[in-house]
Amino acid sequence: MNANQPIGIFDSGIGGLTVAKAVRELLPGEQLIYFGDTAHLPYGDKSTAAIQAYSVKIADVLLKAGCKLILIACNSASAAAFELVKEYAASRAHVFNVIDPVVEYLGVQHAGQRVGLIGTKQTINSGVYFKKVEALQAAITLHSLATPLLAPMIEEGFQRDEVSDTIIQSYLGHEAFKDIQALVLGCTHYPLIKKQIDAYFEFQVDVIDSSEIVARAMKHFLEIRGLLNDLPKGDDRFLVSDFTASFQHATALFFGKSVKLERYPLWE
Amino acid sequence: MNANQPIGIFDSGIGGLTVAKAVRELLPGEQLIYFGDTAHLPYGDKSTAAIQAYSVKIADVLLKAGCKLILIACNSASAAAFELVKEYAASRAHVFNVIDPVVEYLGVQHAGQRVGLIGTKQTINSGVYFKKVEALQAAITLHSLATPLLAPMIEEGFQRDEVSDTIIQSYLGHEAFKDIQALVLGCTHYPLIKKQIDAYFEFQVDVIDSSEIVARAMKHFLEIRGLLNDLPKGDDRFLVSDFTASFQHATALFFGKSVKLERYPLWE
Repeated sequence: MNANQPIGIFDSGIGGLTVAKAVRELLPGEQLIYFGDTAHLPYGDKSTAAIQAYSVKIADVLLKAGCKLILIACNSASAAAFELVKEYAASRAHVFNVIDPVVEYLGVQHAGQRVGLIGTKQTINSGVYFKKVEALQAAITLHSLATPLLAPMIEEGFQRDEVSDTIIQSYLGHEAFKDIQALVLGCTHYPLIKKQIDAYFEFQVDVIDSSEIVARAMKHFLEIRGLLNDLPKGDDRFLVSDFTASFQHATALFFGKSVKLERYPLWE
Repeated sequence: MNANQPIGIFDSGIGGLTVAKAVRELLPGEQLIYFGDTAHLPYGDKSTAAIQAYSVKIADVLLKAGCKLILIACNSASAAAFELVKEYAASRAHVFNVIDPVVEYLGVQHAGQRVGLIGTKQTINSGVYFKKVEALQAAITLHSLATPLLAPMIEEGFQRDEVSDTIIQSYLGHEAFKDIQALVLGCTHYPLIKKQIDAYFEFQVDVIDSSEIVARAMKHFLEIRGLLNDLPKGDDRFLVSDFTASFQHATALFFGKSVKLERYPLWE
Protein backbone atom coordinates (compact mmCIF):
# COMPACT_ATOMS: atom_id res chain seq x y z
CA MET A 1 0.00 0.00 0.00
CA ASN A 2 1.14 3.54 -0.65
CA ALA A 3 -0.21 7.04 -0.08
CA ASN A 4 -1.06 7.57 -3.75
CA GLN A 5 -3.83 4.98 -3.75
CA PRO A 6 -7.44 6.19 -3.50
CA ILE A 7 -9.83 5.79 -0.57
CA GLY A 8 -12.95 3.70 -1.22
CA ILE A 9 -16.20 4.57 0.51
CA PHE A 10 -19.41 2.61 0.23
CA ASP A 11 -22.99 2.93 1.40
CA SER A 12 -26.42 1.46 0.67
CA GLY A 13 -27.24 4.58 -1.30
CA ILE A 14 -26.36 8.24 -1.25
CA GLY A 15 -26.73 8.92 2.50
CA GLY A 16 -23.06 7.97 2.95
CA LEU A 17 -22.18 11.10 1.01
CA THR A 18 -22.44 12.93 4.35
CA VAL A 19 -19.41 10.89 5.45
CA ALA A 20 -17.66 11.34 2.08
CA LYS A 21 -18.16 15.09 2.49
CA ALA A 22 -16.44 15.10 5.90
CA VAL A 23 -13.57 13.01 4.46
CA ARG A 24 -13.33 15.32 1.44
CA GLU A 25 -13.01 18.35 3.72
CA LEU A 26 -10.57 16.91 6.25
CA LEU A 27 -8.37 14.97 3.78
CA PRO A 28 -8.16 17.25 0.73
CA GLY A 29 -5.18 15.34 -0.68
CA GLU A 30 -7.06 12.08 -1.15
CA GLN A 31 -8.84 10.74 -4.22
CA LEU A 32 -12.20 9.21 -3.29
CA ILE A 33 -14.08 6.39 -5.00
CA TYR A 34 -17.64 6.22 -3.70
CA PHE A 35 -20.00 3.33 -4.32
CA GLY A 36 -23.73 3.71 -3.51
CA ASP A 37 -25.73 0.49 -3.74
CA THR A 38 -28.89 2.26 -4.86
CA ALA A 39 -30.21 -0.98 -6.39
CA HIS A 40 -30.63 -2.36 -2.87
CA LEU A 41 -31.23 0.73 -0.79
CA PRO A 42 -32.20 0.95 1.99
CA TYR A 43 -30.12 -1.66 3.86
CA GLY A 44 -31.91 -0.81 7.10
CA ASP A 45 -34.59 -3.47 6.71
CA LYS A 46 -32.62 -6.10 4.78
CA SER A 47 -31.26 -9.27 6.40
CA THR A 48 -27.71 -9.59 7.74
CA ALA A 49 -26.90 -12.26 5.14
CA ALA A 50 -28.09 -10.05 2.27
CA ILE A 51 -26.07 -7.04 3.47
CA GLN A 52 -22.98 -9.23 3.87
CA ALA A 53 -23.31 -10.54 0.31
CA TYR A 54 -23.72 -7.02 -1.12
CA SER A 55 -20.84 -5.62 0.95
CA VAL A 56 -18.30 -8.21 -0.17
CA LYS A 57 -19.14 -7.67 -3.83
CA ILE A 58 -18.81 -3.90 -3.47
CA ALA A 59 -15.55 -4.25 -1.52
CA ASP A 60 -14.26 -6.29 -4.45
CA VAL A 61 -14.94 -3.38 -6.84
CA LEU A 62 -13.07 -0.99 -4.54
CA LEU A 63 -10.14 -3.37 -4.09
CA LYS A 64 -9.85 -3.79 -7.85
CA ALA A 65 -9.82 0.01 -8.14
CA GLY A 66 -6.69 -0.10 -5.97
CA CYS A 67 -8.04 1.49 -2.79
CA LYS A 68 -5.67 1.59 0.17
CA LEU A 69 -8.55 1.92 2.61
CA ILE A 70 -12.23 0.98 2.43
CA LEU A 71 -14.65 2.95 4.61
CA ILE A 72 -18.03 1.35 5.19
CA ALA A 73 -20.02 4.59 5.37
CA CYS A 74 -23.28 2.97 6.43
CA ASN A 75 -24.22 1.94 9.95
CA SER A 76 -26.31 -1.05 8.82
CA ALA A 77 -23.43 -2.42 6.74
CA SER A 78 -20.89 -1.55 9.45
CA ALA A 79 -22.99 -3.57 11.89
CA ALA A 80 -23.58 -6.52 9.56
CA ALA A 81 -20.45 -6.82 7.44
CA PHE A 82 -17.39 -5.07 8.93
CA GLU A 83 -15.62 -8.23 10.17
CA LEU A 84 -16.37 -10.00 6.91
CA VAL A 85 -15.10 -7.18 4.67
CA LYS A 86 -11.99 -6.84 6.84
CA GLU A 87 -11.30 -10.55 6.47
CA TYR A 88 -12.00 -10.37 2.73
CA ALA A 89 -9.70 -7.39 2.14
CA ALA A 90 -6.99 -8.97 4.31
CA SER A 91 -3.62 -7.37 3.52
CA ARG A 92 -4.89 -5.65 0.35
CA ALA A 93 -6.53 -2.68 2.10
CA HIS A 94 -7.36 -1.30 5.51
CA VAL A 95 -11.04 -1.34 6.42
CA PHE A 96 -12.87 1.29 8.47
CA ASN A 97 -16.43 1.40 9.74
CA VAL A 98 -18.52 4.28 11.09
CA ILE A 99 -19.16 2.69 14.48
CA ASP A 100 -15.76 2.10 16.13
CA PRO A 101 -14.57 5.74 16.02
CA VAL A 102 -17.83 6.84 17.66
CA VAL A 103 -17.58 4.21 20.37
CA GLU A 104 -14.01 5.35 21.07
CA TYR A 105 -15.28 8.95 21.30
CA LEU A 106 -17.98 7.88 23.78
CA GLY A 107 -15.35 6.23 25.97
CA VAL A 108 -13.38 9.48 26.13
CA GLN A 109 -16.19 12.03 26.34
CA HIS A 110 -19.10 10.24 28.00
CA ALA A 111 -17.73 7.67 30.45
CA GLY A 112 -20.16 7.01 33.28
CA GLN A 113 -23.06 8.68 31.47
CA ARG A 114 -26.45 7.81 29.94
CA VAL A 115 -26.17 7.78 26.16
CA GLY A 116 -28.97 7.41 23.57
CA LEU A 117 -28.67 5.79 20.15
CA ILE A 118 -30.97 6.04 17.12
CA GLY A 119 -30.62 4.12 13.85
CA THR A 120 -32.24 1.68 11.43
CA LYS A 121 -33.81 -1.59 12.55
CA GLN A 122 -30.82 -3.50 11.19
CA THR A 123 -28.32 -1.35 13.15
CA ILE A 124 -30.26 -1.36 16.42
CA ASN A 125 -31.26 -5.04 16.31
CA SER A 126 -27.68 -6.12 15.58
CA GLY A 127 -26.73 -5.00 19.10
CA VAL A 128 -23.29 -4.05 17.80
CA TYR A 129 -23.16 -0.67 19.58
CA PHE A 130 -24.09 -2.40 22.85
CA LYS A 131 -21.33 -4.98 22.51
CA LYS A 132 -18.70 -2.40 21.64
CA VAL A 133 -19.75 0.07 24.34
CA GLU A 134 -19.82 -2.77 26.88
CA ALA A 135 -16.28 -3.74 25.87
CA LEU A 136 -15.12 -0.20 26.75
CA GLN A 137 -15.92 -0.89 30.43
CA ALA A 138 -16.55 2.82 30.82
CA ALA A 139 -19.82 2.54 32.78
CA ILE A 140 -21.84 3.96 29.88
CA THR A 141 -25.55 3.08 29.89
CA LEU A 142 -26.77 2.88 26.30
CA HIS A 143 -30.46 3.35 25.42
CA SER A 144 -31.41 2.66 21.84
CA LEU A 145 -34.44 3.02 19.59
CA ALA A 146 -34.94 2.05 15.94
CA THR A 147 -36.18 5.15 14.09
CA PRO A 148 -36.88 3.80 10.58
CA LEU A 149 -39.01 6.70 9.37
CA LEU A 150 -36.22 9.29 9.76
CA ALA A 151 -34.16 8.26 6.70
CA PRO A 152 -37.07 8.36 4.18
CA MET A 153 -38.27 11.58 5.82
CA ILE A 154 -34.88 13.20 5.21
CA GLU A 155 -34.59 11.79 1.69
CA GLU A 156 -37.96 13.27 0.80
CA GLY A 157 -36.85 16.71 1.94
CA PHE A 158 -38.92 17.02 5.11
CA GLN A 159 -36.80 19.27 7.33
CA ARG A 160 -37.66 22.03 9.78
CA ASP A 161 -41.38 21.68 9.11
CA GLU A 162 -44.41 20.26 10.88
CA VAL A 163 -43.96 16.75 9.46
CA SER A 164 -40.34 16.43 10.61
CA ASP A 165 -41.07 18.09 13.96
CA THR A 166 -43.87 15.61 14.64
CA ILE A 167 -41.82 12.56 13.64
CA ILE A 168 -38.74 13.68 15.60
CA GLN A 169 -40.86 14.41 18.66
CA SER A 170 -42.58 11.04 18.38
CA TYR A 171 -39.24 9.20 18.41
CA LEU A 172 -37.13 11.33 20.73
CA GLY A 173 -39.93 11.78 23.23
CA HIS A 174 -39.48 8.07 24.02
CA GLU A 175 -38.82 7.49 27.71
CA ALA A 176 -35.55 5.71 26.85
CA PHE A 177 -34.10 9.12 26.07
CA LYS A 178 -35.01 10.80 29.35
CA ASP A 179 -31.96 12.34 31.02
CA ILE A 180 -29.43 11.26 28.39
CA GLN A 181 -26.22 13.26 28.18
CA ALA A 182 -25.41 12.32 24.58
CA LEU A 183 -27.24 10.96 21.53
CA VAL A 184 -25.46 8.97 18.81
CA LEU A 185 -26.85 9.61 15.31
CA GLY A 186 -26.44 6.00 14.14
CA CYS A 187 -27.32 6.55 10.48
CA THR A 188 -25.52 8.61 7.87
CA HIS A 189 -28.74 10.45 6.96
CA TYR A 190 -29.23 11.95 10.38
CA PRO A 191 -26.56 14.69 10.33
CA LEU A 192 -28.97 16.57 8.05
CA ILE A 193 -31.42 17.00 10.93
CA LYS A 194 -28.78 17.50 13.65
CA LYS A 195 -29.81 21.12 14.19
CA GLN A 196 -33.44 20.13 14.66
CA ILE A 197 -32.41 17.44 17.14
CA ASP A 198 -30.12 19.90 18.95
CA ALA A 199 -33.10 22.23 19.25
CA TYR A 200 -35.38 19.42 20.44
CA PHE A 201 -33.00 18.77 23.35
CA GLU A 202 -32.56 22.51 23.88
CA PHE A 203 -28.83 22.10 23.25
CA GLN A 204 -28.42 20.21 26.56
CA VAL A 205 -27.41 16.93 24.89
CA ASP A 206 -24.22 16.17 22.91
CA VAL A 207 -25.75 15.11 19.58
CA ILE A 208 -23.01 13.06 17.93
CA ASP A 209 -22.55 13.29 14.16
CA SER A 210 -20.26 10.39 13.33
CA SER A 211 -19.05 11.71 9.96
CA GLU A 212 -16.53 14.17 11.38
CA ILE A 213 -15.36 11.78 14.09
CA VAL A 214 -14.82 9.07 11.46
CA ALA A 215 -12.93 11.43 9.14
CA ARG A 216 -10.65 12.52 11.99
CA ALA A 217 -9.97 8.91 13.02
CA MET A 218 -9.12 8.01 9.41
CA LYS A 219 -6.78 10.95 9.05
CA HIS A 220 -4.90 9.95 12.20
CA PHE A 221 -4.78 6.31 11.08
CA LEU A 222 -3.32 7.15 7.66
CA GLU A 223 -0.93 9.77 9.06
CA ILE A 224 0.82 7.48 11.50
CA ARG A 225 1.27 4.87 8.76
CA GLY A 226 2.65 7.33 6.22
CA LEU A 227 -0.34 6.67 3.96
CA LEU A 228 -1.78 10.18 3.90
CA ASN A 229 -1.71 11.72 0.45
CA ASP A 230 -1.01 15.42 -0.09
CA LEU A 231 -2.29 15.75 -3.65
CA PRO A 232 -5.11 13.72 -5.24
CA LYS A 233 -3.85 11.49 -8.07
CA GLY A 234 -7.20 11.64 -9.88
CA ASP A 235 -10.73 12.99 -9.74
CA ASP A 236 -13.23 11.66 -7.23
CA ARG A 237 -15.68 9.14 -8.65
CA PHE A 238 -19.22 8.43 -7.52
CA LEU A 239 -20.60 5.08 -8.67
CA VAL A 240 -24.19 3.86 -8.14
CA SER A 241 -25.67 0.43 -8.87
CA ASP A 242 -28.95 2.00 -10.04
CA PHE A 243 -29.25 5.49 -11.48
CA THR A 244 -32.27 7.78 -11.26
CA ALA A 245 -32.64 11.55 -11.61
CA SER A 246 -33.88 11.60 -8.04
CA PHE A 247 -30.60 10.09 -6.73
CA GLN A 248 -28.62 12.56 -8.84
CA HIS A 249 -30.66 15.41 -7.44
CA ALA A 250 -30.16 14.24 -3.85
CA THR A 251 -26.35 14.31 -4.06
CA ALA A 252 -26.43 18.05 -3.38
CA LEU A 253 -28.48 17.39 -0.24
CA PHE A 254 -25.96 14.95 1.23
CA PHE A 255 -22.62 16.10 -0.23
CA GLY A 256 -23.26 19.82 0.09
CA LYS A 257 -22.85 20.25 -3.64
CA SER A 258 -24.00 18.31 -6.68
CA VAL A 259 -21.68 15.54 -7.93
CA LYS A 260 -21.98 13.47 -11.07
CA LEU A 261 -23.19 9.92 -10.43
CA GLU A 262 -21.92 7.16 -12.74
CA ARG A 263 -24.09 4.12 -13.32
CA TYR A 264 -22.17 0.95 -12.40
CA PRO A 265 -24.53 -2.01 -12.86
CA LEU A 266 -22.79 -4.39 -10.47
CA TRP A 267 -25.75 -6.76 -10.20
CA GLU A 268 -26.62 -7.22 -13.86
CA MET B 1 -53.97 -23.13 -19.82
CA ASN B 2 -56.53 -24.69 -17.53
CA ALA B 3 -58.45 -23.71 -14.43
CA ASN B 4 -56.39 -25.94 -12.13
CA GLN B 5 -53.24 -23.86 -12.54
CA PRO B 6 -52.31 -21.43 -9.76
CA ILE B 7 -52.39 -17.62 -9.89
CA GLY B 8 -49.05 -15.87 -9.49
CA ILE B 9 -48.88 -12.50 -7.72
CA PHE B 10 -45.76 -10.41 -7.32
CA ASP B 11 -44.77 -7.20 -5.60
CA SER B 12 -41.63 -5.35 -4.54
CA GLY B 13 -42.21 -6.56 -1.01
CA ILE B 14 -45.11 -7.46 1.21
CA GLY B 15 -47.41 -4.49 0.48
CA GLY B 16 -48.90 -6.48 -2.42
CA LEU B 17 -50.39 -8.80 0.19
CA THR B 18 -53.29 -6.32 0.38
CA VAL B 19 -54.10 -7.30 -3.21
CA ALA B 20 -53.48 -11.00 -2.51
CA LYS B 21 -55.92 -10.74 0.37
CA ALA B 22 -58.66 -9.34 -1.87
CA VAL B 23 -57.98 -12.10 -4.44
CA ARG B 24 -58.00 -14.74 -1.68
CA GLU B 25 -61.40 -13.53 -0.50
CA LEU B 26 -63.09 -13.11 -3.88
CA LEU B 27 -61.61 -16.19 -5.56
CA PRO B 28 -61.57 -18.84 -2.80
CA GLY B 29 -61.08 -21.69 -5.31
CA GLU B 30 -57.68 -20.47 -6.52
CA GLN B 31 -54.21 -21.47 -5.34
CA LEU B 32 -51.94 -18.41 -5.00
CA ILE B 33 -48.19 -18.18 -5.41
CA TYR B 34 -46.94 -14.87 -4.09
CA PHE B 35 -43.46 -13.48 -4.71
CA GLY B 36 -42.24 -10.46 -2.71
CA ASP B 37 -38.94 -8.99 -3.93
CA THR B 38 -37.87 -7.91 -0.45
CA ALA B 39 -34.21 -7.88 -1.55
CA HIS B 40 -34.98 -4.84 -3.71
CA LEU B 41 -37.85 -3.20 -1.89
CA PRO B 42 -39.01 -0.53 -2.27
CA TYR B 43 -39.37 -0.26 -6.06
CA GLY B 44 -40.78 3.26 -5.71
CA ASP B 45 -37.42 4.99 -6.08
CA LYS B 46 -35.64 2.50 -8.36
CA SER B 47 -35.12 3.12 -12.09
CA THR B 48 -37.48 1.80 -14.77
CA ALA B 49 -34.72 -0.41 -16.20
CA ALA B 50 -34.01 -1.97 -12.80
CA ILE B 51 -37.70 -2.70 -12.13
CA GLN B 52 -38.05 -4.24 -15.58
CA ALA B 53 -35.08 -6.55 -15.00
CA TYR B 54 -36.43 -7.68 -11.61
CA SER B 55 -39.98 -8.16 -12.95
CA VAL B 56 -38.95 -10.42 -15.82
CA LYS B 57 -36.90 -12.65 -13.55
CA ILE B 58 -39.77 -12.96 -11.07
CA ALA B 59 -42.27 -13.62 -13.87
CA ASP B 60 -40.00 -16.45 -14.93
CA VAL B 61 -40.28 -18.07 -11.48
CA LEU B 62 -44.08 -17.81 -11.61
CA LEU B 63 -44.26 -19.18 -15.15
CA LYS B 64 -42.09 -22.15 -14.16
CA ALA B 65 -44.47 -22.74 -11.25
CA GLY B 66 -47.19 -23.16 -13.89
CA CYS B 67 -49.27 -20.05 -13.21
CA LYS B 68 -52.18 -19.41 -15.58
CA LEU B 69 -52.21 -15.73 -14.69
CA ILE B 70 -49.59 -13.34 -13.31
CA LEU B 71 -50.82 -10.33 -11.38
CA ILE B 72 -48.33 -7.50 -10.94
CA ALA B 73 -49.56 -6.36 -7.52
CA CYS B 74 -47.38 -3.26 -7.36
CA ASN B 75 -48.11 0.07 -8.98
CA SER B 76 -44.44 0.89 -9.61
CA ALA B 77 -43.89 -2.44 -11.40
CA SER B 78 -47.25 -2.17 -13.20
CA ALA B 79 -46.15 1.22 -14.49
CA ALA B 80 -42.63 0.16 -15.46
CA ALA B 81 -42.90 -3.46 -16.57
CA PHE B 82 -46.44 -4.54 -17.52
CA GLU B 83 -45.95 -4.47 -21.31
CA LEU B 84 -42.61 -6.24 -20.95
CA VAL B 85 -43.91 -9.02 -18.68
CA LYS B 86 -46.94 -9.49 -20.97
CA GLU B 87 -44.61 -9.86 -23.95
CA TYR B 88 -42.36 -12.19 -21.99
CA ALA B 89 -45.20 -14.45 -20.80
CA ALA B 90 -46.74 -14.44 -24.31
CA SER B 91 -49.10 -17.42 -24.65
CA ARG B 92 -47.87 -19.09 -21.46
CA ALA B 93 -49.94 -17.01 -19.03
CA HIS B 94 -52.27 -14.03 -18.87
CA VAL B 95 -50.83 -10.93 -17.23
CA PHE B 96 -52.74 -8.45 -15.08
CA ASN B 97 -51.67 -5.17 -13.55
CA VAL B 98 -53.22 -3.06 -10.79
CA ILE B 99 -53.68 0.05 -12.94
CA ASP B 100 -55.95 -0.90 -15.87
CA PRO B 101 -58.92 -2.12 -13.78
CA VAL B 102 -58.83 1.14 -11.81
CA VAL B 103 -58.69 3.26 -14.96
CA GLU B 104 -61.67 1.32 -16.33
CA TYR B 105 -63.53 1.98 -13.06
CA LEU B 106 -62.77 5.72 -13.34
CA GLY B 107 -64.22 5.77 -16.87
CA VAL B 108 -67.46 4.29 -15.58
CA GLN B 109 -67.82 6.07 -12.23
CA HIS B 110 -66.02 9.37 -12.62
CA ALA B 111 -66.35 10.55 -16.22
CA GLY B 112 -66.19 14.34 -16.49
CA GLN B 113 -64.82 14.74 -12.95
CA ARG B 114 -61.67 15.90 -11.14
CA VAL B 115 -59.74 12.89 -9.85
CA GLY B 116 -56.67 12.84 -7.60
CA LEU B 117 -53.88 10.25 -7.64
CA ILE B 118 -51.23 9.48 -5.03
CA GLY B 119 -48.37 6.99 -5.38
CA THR B 120 -44.60 6.48 -5.37
CA LYS B 121 -42.24 8.66 -7.38
CA GLN B 122 -41.79 5.86 -9.90
CA THR B 123 -45.55 5.47 -10.42
CA ILE B 124 -46.30 9.19 -10.64
CA ASN B 125 -43.29 10.12 -12.79
CA SER B 126 -44.03 7.32 -15.26
CA GLY B 127 -47.18 9.20 -16.29
CA VAL B 128 -48.88 5.88 -16.97
CA TYR B 129 -52.15 6.79 -15.23
CA PHE B 130 -52.29 10.02 -17.27
CA LYS B 131 -51.81 8.20 -20.56
CA LYS B 132 -54.41 5.57 -19.74
CA VAL B 133 -56.98 8.04 -18.39
CA GLU B 134 -56.42 10.25 -21.45
CA ALA B 135 -57.08 7.26 -23.71
CA LEU B 136 -60.49 6.82 -22.06
CA GLN B 137 -61.60 10.15 -23.56
CA ALA B 138 -63.94 10.51 -20.61
CA ALA B 139 -63.13 14.15 -19.78
CA ILE B 140 -61.46 13.19 -16.52
CA THR B 141 -58.96 15.71 -15.14
CA LEU B 142 -56.26 13.86 -13.24
CA HIS B 143 -54.19 15.59 -10.52
CA SER B 144 -51.29 13.62 -9.13
CA LEU B 145 -48.75 13.89 -6.34
CA ALA B 146 -45.88 11.60 -5.38
CA THR B 147 -46.29 10.75 -1.69
CA PRO B 148 -43.15 8.71 -0.95
CA LEU B 149 -43.30 8.93 2.84
CA LEU B 150 -46.67 7.15 3.10
CA ALA B 151 -45.40 3.60 2.40
CA PRO B 152 -42.60 3.63 5.02
CA MET B 153 -44.99 5.34 7.44
CA ILE B 154 -47.49 2.50 7.04
CA GLU B 155 -44.79 -0.19 7.20
CA GLU B 156 -43.54 1.23 10.49
CA GLY B 157 -47.00 1.05 11.99
CA PHE B 158 -47.87 4.74 12.12
CA GLN B 159 -51.66 4.78 11.77
CA ARG B 160 -54.37 6.92 13.34
CA ASP B 161 -51.85 8.91 15.35
CA GLU B 162 -50.29 12.35 15.29
CA VAL B 163 -47.45 11.33 12.98
CA SER B 164 -49.73 9.82 10.31
CA ASP B 165 -52.27 12.65 10.64
CA THR B 166 -49.55 15.25 10.06
CA ILE B 167 -48.04 13.44 7.06
CA ILE B 168 -51.44 12.76 5.45
CA GLN B 169 -52.48 16.36 5.97
CA SER B 170 -49.21 17.61 4.51
CA TYR B 171 -49.73 15.60 1.31
CA LEU B 172 -53.50 15.73 0.83
CA GLY B 173 -53.70 19.41 1.74
CA HIS B 174 -51.90 20.06 -1.57
CA GLU B 175 -53.85 22.43 -3.79
CA ALA B 176 -53.88 19.80 -6.56
CA PHE B 177 -56.48 17.94 -4.52
CA LYS B 178 -58.90 20.82 -4.05
CA ASP B 179 -62.42 19.91 -5.22
CA ILE B 180 -61.56 16.39 -6.36
CA GLN B 181 -64.44 13.91 -6.56
CA ALA B 182 -62.28 10.79 -6.30
CA LEU B 183 -58.79 9.85 -5.13
CA VAL B 184 -56.93 6.84 -6.51
CA LEU B 185 -54.73 5.08 -3.92
CA GLY B 186 -51.93 4.28 -6.37
CA CYS B 187 -49.85 2.07 -4.06
CA THR B 188 -50.74 -1.26 -2.50
CA HIS B 189 -49.79 0.01 0.96
CA TYR B 190 -52.38 2.77 1.02
CA PRO B 191 -55.56 0.70 1.63
CA LEU B 192 -54.33 0.40 5.22
CA ILE B 193 -54.91 4.13 5.75
CA LYS B 194 -58.07 4.37 3.63
CA LYS B 195 -60.24 5.11 6.68
CA GLN B 196 -57.95 7.95 7.73
CA ILE B 197 -58.05 9.38 4.21
CA ASP B 198 -61.84 8.99 4.08
CA ALA B 199 -62.02 10.96 7.31
CA TYR B 200 -59.61 13.61 6.01
CA PHE B 201 -61.99 14.27 3.10
CA GLU B 202 -64.98 14.03 5.44
CA PHE B 203 -66.31 11.13 3.34
CA GLN B 204 -67.04 13.52 0.43
CA VAL B 205 -64.49 11.91 -1.90
CA ASP B 206 -64.55 8.41 -3.44
CA VAL B 207 -61.26 7.01 -2.10
CA ILE B 208 -60.42 4.18 -4.47
CA ASP B 209 -58.78 1.04 -3.08
CA SER B 210 -57.59 -0.81 -6.17
CA SER B 211 -57.25 -4.23 -4.55
CA GLU B 212 -60.97 -5.09 -4.64
CA ILE B 213 -61.45 -3.61 -8.10
CA VAL B 214 -58.52 -5.67 -9.40
CA ALA B 215 -59.80 -8.87 -7.77
CA ARG B 216 -63.26 -8.34 -9.32
CA ALA B 217 -61.77 -7.68 -12.77
CA MET B 218 -59.65 -10.85 -12.51
CA LYS B 219 -62.62 -12.94 -11.46
CA HIS B 220 -64.63 -11.73 -14.44
CA PHE B 221 -61.69 -12.31 -16.79
CA LEU B 222 -61.13 -15.90 -15.63
CA GLU B 223 -64.86 -16.69 -15.53
CA ILE B 224 -65.59 -15.79 -19.14
CA ARG B 225 -62.60 -17.88 -20.27
CA GLY B 226 -63.55 -20.94 -18.23
CA LEU B 227 -60.36 -20.57 -16.20
CA LEU B 228 -61.89 -19.99 -12.76
CA ASN B 229 -61.08 -22.77 -10.31
CA ASP B 230 -63.61 -24.00 -7.76
CA LEU B 231 -61.24 -25.83 -5.42
CA PRO B 232 -57.57 -24.93 -4.78
CA LYS B 233 -55.22 -27.69 -6.00
CA GLY B 234 -52.60 -26.84 -3.40
CA ASP B 235 -51.73 -24.55 -0.50
CA ASP B 236 -50.91 -20.90 -1.10
CA ARG B 237 -47.18 -20.12 -1.07
CA PHE B 238 -45.51 -16.87 -0.11
CA LEU B 239 -41.95 -16.50 -1.40
CA VAL B 240 -39.58 -13.63 -0.55
CA SER B 241 -36.15 -12.85 -2.00
CA ASP B 242 -34.85 -11.71 1.40
CA PHE B 243 -36.22 -12.93 4.73
CA THR B 244 -36.31 -10.98 7.99
CA ALA B 245 -38.42 -11.35 11.12
CA SER B 246 -39.73 -7.88 10.44
CA PHE B 247 -41.16 -8.92 7.03
CA GLN B 248 -42.68 -12.04 8.60
CA HIS B 249 -44.27 -9.93 11.30
CA ALA B 250 -45.71 -7.47 8.77
CA THR B 251 -47.60 -10.15 6.82
CA ALA B 252 -50.41 -9.94 9.37
CA LEU B 253 -50.63 -6.19 8.79
CA PHE B 254 -51.10 -6.52 5.02
CA PHE B 255 -52.79 -9.92 4.62
CA GLY B 256 -55.11 -9.62 7.61
CA LYS B 257 -53.57 -12.72 9.15
CA SER B 258 -50.04 -14.03 9.51
CA VAL B 259 -48.73 -16.22 6.68
CA LYS B 260 -45.49 -18.17 6.53
CA LEU B 261 -42.87 -16.56 4.30
CA GLU B 262 -40.44 -18.86 2.45
CA ARG B 263 -36.99 -17.56 1.60
CA TYR B 264 -36.38 -17.85 -2.15
CA PRO B 265 -32.95 -16.34 -2.89
CA LEU B 266 -33.59 -15.50 -6.54
CA TRP B 267 -30.63 -13.12 -6.81
CA GLU B 268 -27.88 -15.21 -5.23
